[in-house]
Amino acid sequence: MKDAKGMTNKQRRSPAPDPAPNPASATAAPPAPAATSAATSAAVTRRRLLATAGGVGVAGLAVGAAAGYAAAPGHAGTGTGADSGAGGYAGVPLTALGADSVPFFGTHQAGIVQPAQARMYAAAFDLTAGTARPGLAALMKRWSAAAAAMAEGRTPPGVTDTDVALDAGPSSLTVTFGFGASVFAKAGLGARLPEQLAPLPAFPSDALVPANSNGDLWVQVCADDGLVSFHAMRTLQQLAAGAAAVRWQMTGFSRSPGATERPRTVRNLMGQIDGTNNPKPTDKAFNTEVFVPAAGSPAWMAGGSYAVFRRIRMLLNSWEQQTLTVQERVIGRYKATGGPLSGGAETTTVQLDKLNPDGSLAIPGDAHIRVAAAQSNQGAVLLRRGFSYADGFRPDGAPDAGLLFVAFQSDPLTGFVPVQRKLTRGDALSQFIVHESSGLFAVPGGAASADGYVGQALLES
Amino acid sequence: MKDAKGMTNKQRRSPAPDPAPNPASATAAPPAPAATSAATSAAVTRRRLLATAGGVGVAGLAVGAAAGYAAAPGHAGTGTGADSGAGGYAGVPLTALGADSVPFFGTHQAGIVQPAQARMYAAAFDLTAGTARPGLAALMKRWSAAAAAMAEGRTPPGVTDTDVALDAGPSSLTVTFGFGASVFAKAGLGARLPEQLAPLPAFPSDALVPANSNGDLWVQVCADDGLVSFHAMRTLQQLAAGAAAVRWQMTGFSRSPGATERPRTVRNLMGQIDGTNNPKPTDKAFNTEVFVPAAGSPAWMAGGSYAVFRRIRMLLNSWEQQTLTVQERVIGRYKATGGPLSGGAETTTVQLDKLNPDGSLAIPGDAHIRVAAAQSNQGAVLLRRGFSYADGFRPDGAPDAGLLFVAFQSDPLTGFVPVQRKLTRGDALSQFIVHESSGLFAVPGGAASADGYVGQALLES
Repeated sequence: MKDAKGMTNKQRRSPAPDPAPNPASATAAPPAPAATSAATSAAVTRRRLLATAGGVGVAGLAVGAAAGYAAAPGHAGTGTGADSGAGGYAGVPLTALGADSVPFFGTHQAGIVQPAQARMYAAAFDLTAGTARPGLAALMKRWSAAAAAMAEGRTPPGVTDTDVALDAGPSSLTVTFGFGASVFAKAGLGARLPEQLAPLPAFPSDALVPANSNGDLWVQVCADDGLVSFHAMRTLQQLAAGAAAVRWQMTGFSRSPGATERPRTVRNLMGQIDGTNNPKPTDKAFNTEVFVPAAGSPAWMAGGSYAVFRRIRMLLNSWEQQTLTVQERVIGRYKATGGPLSGGAETTTVQLDKLNPDGSLAIPGDAHIRVAAAQSNQGAVLLRRGFSYADGFRPDGAPDAGLLFVAFQSDPLTGFVPVQRKLTRGDALSQFIVHESSGLFAVPGGAASADGYVGQALLES
Repeated sequence: MKDAKGMTNKQRRSPAPDPAPNPASATAAPPAPAATSAATSAAVTRRRLLATAGGVGVAGLAVGAAAGYAAAPGHAGTGTGADSGAGGYAGVPLTALGADSVPFFGTHQAGIVQPAQARMYAAAFDLTAGTARPGLAALMKRWSAAAAAMAEGRTPPGVTDTDVALDAGPSSLTVTFGFGASVFAKAGLGARLPEQLAPLPAFPSDALVPANSNGDLWVQVCADDGLVSFHAMRTLQQLAAGAAAVRWQMTGFSRSPGATERPRTVRNLMGQIDGTNNPKPTDKAFNTEVFVPAAGSPAWMAGGSYAVFRRIRMLLNSWEQQTLTVQERVIGRYKATGGPLSGGAETTTVQLDKLNPDGSLAIPGDAHIRVAAAQSNQGAVLLRRGFSYADGFRPDGAPDAGLLFVAFQSDPLTGFVPVQRKLTRGDALSQFIVHESSGLFAVPGGAASADGYVGQALLES
């Protein structure tokens, strides 16, 4: 993904449906993966990996929980260990990266509250002509079954597996599905379009490329291994054949587990620690800020969330020419520690009204953390879960790099919209970024078990 | 990078040189990184990370060596643990990913014998007009000093640091530099052009894009953390400003440490285990196969190697439609285990003459491992160190994905060239791949210490 021209390269159709099974093949007609000794040994390998992981995962959870962050619901283990407090460095992973898993089934979809994995793909699909509600329901069933299997390190059903992820374990794979506003009319569900999916307002700083924005369906694939994430994304593409085609796809990355002292301290490509002010699963209001309540509206969104996706290019050539002092005043935090300019460590509460000895605001009036703060936006809270991207360079020589911004909230009209509206007016950071893609998606609650699938309440009830 | 059109987007110039230091800045004039408390605390963090890592790294090396592979010279620790033999799964990393380091200084450059890290950038730079031998020497000095610092998790000198890698440790960062044939005349070194840099012959299956091939200088940046690798590549770009500009840049990935049972079993995007037949550092002939001997010619290449770089797109839509049996016969190995079709496990010696009960060859005549085997090519050996790439899709809907092939050898005329010549004639795999980029680079020996730099013997003697 690069510019308006390059971006057209991201538009595509799904791969052609598989041809009729070749009678000469031992495995061309799924599901019969155990028909060869090779496939059997692979299955054994996977089972062994997972069986051994079980015990270790429990230990990982216990210690991770003590750190106060990795206790996010639904995470079976932590990729990195908590700080032991003895010697200051305890980044040694407690569980093997490959064996770590995140359950697919649950009240909420996976990939929302988990710390960002090392690798991410985001993609939008558009329904192909002729796909209506039954076809969409069938696709969501196929996708859910495949995502559930892959999240456990099993071979996905319904497709001849590419084997790319074989022997790697789930590697904390999460797959998250969303519905864009455009899919409702296409699937004959116009009456069910949530008001929360009203188009985001146009912001003055937007430079959106339509072909790389929006879309009928949204998929977020994250894992701690690059081959596992590629395998999952590719599998979903194959399963979409005939029902939906990729509209755009982008690739992101975040910290590898174990690279930093604390569990995955994440910096963005500007060098700034990101996500500090995120709501925590332990916060009282976390669930209502992020998830639609069980009695919420529409009913089929119970346990769901709304995802705002933005591709935000950073003007790194310009940013990097700023002095450290300027950069820190733009953000409102010290770059090295993440501590606010009002004093303290990264997690110290920001004192927006603190003054310098000369009477000026310690955190400048246009500092990003001031303008984006909940206090400045009627308590608006977003659960940000962004990933960096770096796709080389643009024709003008500038890096094509920045942030794949993903934010979850129970209602975008009280979450992203007021915050972004304020940011585009007064944020000092805005001169160093350009919003190039945008999407808003309804992310339904999770499937409770293999008897259901994501979106079932929308598509069947 | 996508097609002939998209690829032009990868052409670029380096970022503009930094402006004159702003007098209002505390840190704009390097080297004075300790001028602020923030910078100081960052330095402390890094030192702590490294100090603690030391002891763990030693343990990692000892156990890793027992596994017979990770004993590659120059690797201070292993990213993943060796198989303990008890319970079959021991992928728990022995050292923290971030703290693991690979020394920059040594007889050979880093990034050749080390197992492939999780993240990789490859880039070629062209000298800017007016850059001659002194300018090139100065650039290699800056680059070497920065690479050496970053390999130890220190802030790179000579540039205002972007801080993107702050607090992440070296994460096994390696930076490898090479010289393309075109740089010799430009830098007034025409008489020193090694005969080994004669242009690779045109192979019938090539579909090379010139703008994404060759180049005056080649840089390979690898690390186990995405932010560390981005930081290093970006730093090198900044340090090149005024002397050289990026010609092309590509992004690759490999297995994350800990994702697989064995230390980093790597599959390519076709799902096949890759690199099995690679020469091992413990092989008798390894050094002469991979490195130019101390008494070799030209003398400035002592301890060096020649890198062949190819961007090989995989025709995945077509490949994935083949049955498992067909795929295995194309490669000559079982997909799940990597064992040869002649029998045994992944590391079992291939029996090229073994026959099936019906008298046919167990490993077909056009199987990739037969055609590429040293026995089929007068003993030609390559040290392959490839990375997968996945850059979305091409305009025709096909995945823009495949292999960034990197192969090191002491002489390409007895290494890559005869192998590739044979492959293009008889390899069953050739119908599923397209070579789109190519480069051949002289990779000099390493700098012995901070008193020297990579390329010094070429540029100063």
